[in-house]
Formats: sequence, structure tokens, C-alpha cells
Amino acid sequence: MDIRVELTPHPIPLARPLPKELTGTAGAIAEFQGIVRAQEAGREIGALEYEAYSAMAEPMIRRICQELAAGGDCQFVSVTHRIGVVSVGEAAIHVVVASRHRAAAFALLTGFMDRLKQDVPIWKARALDTAGRPIAPAP
Amino acid sequence: MDIRVELTPHPIPLARPLPKELTGTAGAIAEFQGIVRAQEAGREIGALEYEAYSAMAEPMIRRICQELAAGGDCQFVSVTHRIGVVSVGEAAIHVVVASRHRAAAFALLTGFMDRLKQDVPIWKARALDTAGRPIAPAP
Repeated sequence: MDIRVELTPHPIPLARPLPKELTGTAGAIAEFQGIVRAQEAGREIGALEYEAYSAMAEPMIRRICQELAAGGDCQFVSVTHRIGVVSVGEAAIHVVVASRHRAAAFALLTGFMDRLKQDVPIWKARALDTAGRPIAPAP
Repeated sequence: MDIRVELTPHPIPLARPLPKELTGTAGAIAEFQGIVRAQEAGREIGALEYEAYSAMAEPMIRRICQELAAGGDCQFVSVTHRIGVVSVGEAAIHVVVASRHRAAAFALLTGFMDRLKQDVPIWKARALDTAGRPIAPAP
């Protein structure tokens, strides 16, 4: 399975074409974006700041994808996570999974999101107000 | 909930921005594309031709979305289905669901795909070979 992992300080482009070699064999593409909302724990915010322990986060993401893909027909997974300041309305994470049939793609996608927060060292370091000032540690 | 349904003979654009009013409140966007594969029931094909009973398909899609959204926090769903000839590698269907939290979006998305084939009058009318000639009724 083709696994791509990227931690990036830049906005995540929404349209990402699949690798050419999947044309004709991929029958299902499932995607998820986690978007920063204007309310966090009842507070109005302007952005969240994410930090990561990259040397551990990237291999852990790969390992989780490999484990979840075992036995299924997934062909491709791409995980892109923002680090640094992510404004309200922007995607903090984008996951794309391609498989022959949709069940495997949905299973990997939902399973991955369940494990991300618990197992991968990427975290919300703090919340910023609409002027970009830190307002408090993120919940 | 904002529900948009489109049956179209044209290729489905991949990047579709959410309605502006969801910025700040949507926390999860889940998407699915069903792609035409080069193998259908063991045969090599070049395209599938879809037909729909549109007058019934569109209201049925809306009804399924409304039923599946009941009790969840979904804010937006867009269902785009191709009709006519769809080539290998192109999306026959694209579904986008936005919600505050991801569980509702995943539930609506996967539930909708389960009900689509069984309840909505859109069907594969026939398979075409790579020269565009009908090769047989689609399975």
C-alpha cells in the first residue's frame, strides 16, 4: 500500500489527484477533513496552534495505517496534518484513502481518525484570539 | 440541514468549496467518490452508462439524507451523481457531508452509500468497451 504522510505549516490544497497508477483499479475514494471551528470549549477563537513531535508522529501514522489496512483492499492513503497556526475554517488534517471497494476505505478512514488523537504526538498547543494573541492553553 | 442534489452528465469537479456560512461552525467534512473501475464482473471495460429516473431519484436522495441526519449534527450534504457515459477512472458519484463533529458526518456518509443502490432509481444500464461500444448489460 502506498502511504504518504506530510506535516506541513502551509494550507492543505483540497484537490489532490490520486497517483496515476490507481486509475482503473481504485473504485472508492474516502476523504476526511478536520476543520478548525470558531468555538473551542465554549470560547470564541480565531485559530489553533498545533505542535508535533515529528520524528515520532510520521512513523506512528504509517504504522497505524498499515495496521488498519491489514486484510483490506486499500491501495493508497495520504495523511496531511498542519502544524503551527491554523485559522478558523481551515483544515488541520486531511486524510484520503483509496481502495477497490468502499468498505475498506471507510474502515481505514474512520479507524485512523479514532487512533490519531490517542496515539500520534500531534497536539493543540494553544488557542489564539481573532487578533492572533494567545488566549489560553487549548483544551 | 442544507441538502443539494445534482444529477449531471458532466464530469464532477473535485474541489467544491463549502457554503460560506459554514465557516467557523463545520468541524468535519467527510467525502466519498465512487470511481468506475476497468474491471466489472471480470470483464475489461472502458466505461459504464448510468440511467436514472430523475423525478424519483432526487426526492428519494433528499429523503434518505433527511432520515439519516435525524438526531445528528450534520449541517450540509451534497450528492452529485453522473448520468450517461462515465469513463474508467472518473467519479460516478460524489458525496460531501459537513457536520460539527466527525461521527455524524461519517454516519450519514456511510449510511447513504448503503441505501443508494437499494433505494434510489439510478442504475448501470450497460458497460461499454474501450472503443465506446456496448459490450453487454452491466451486472
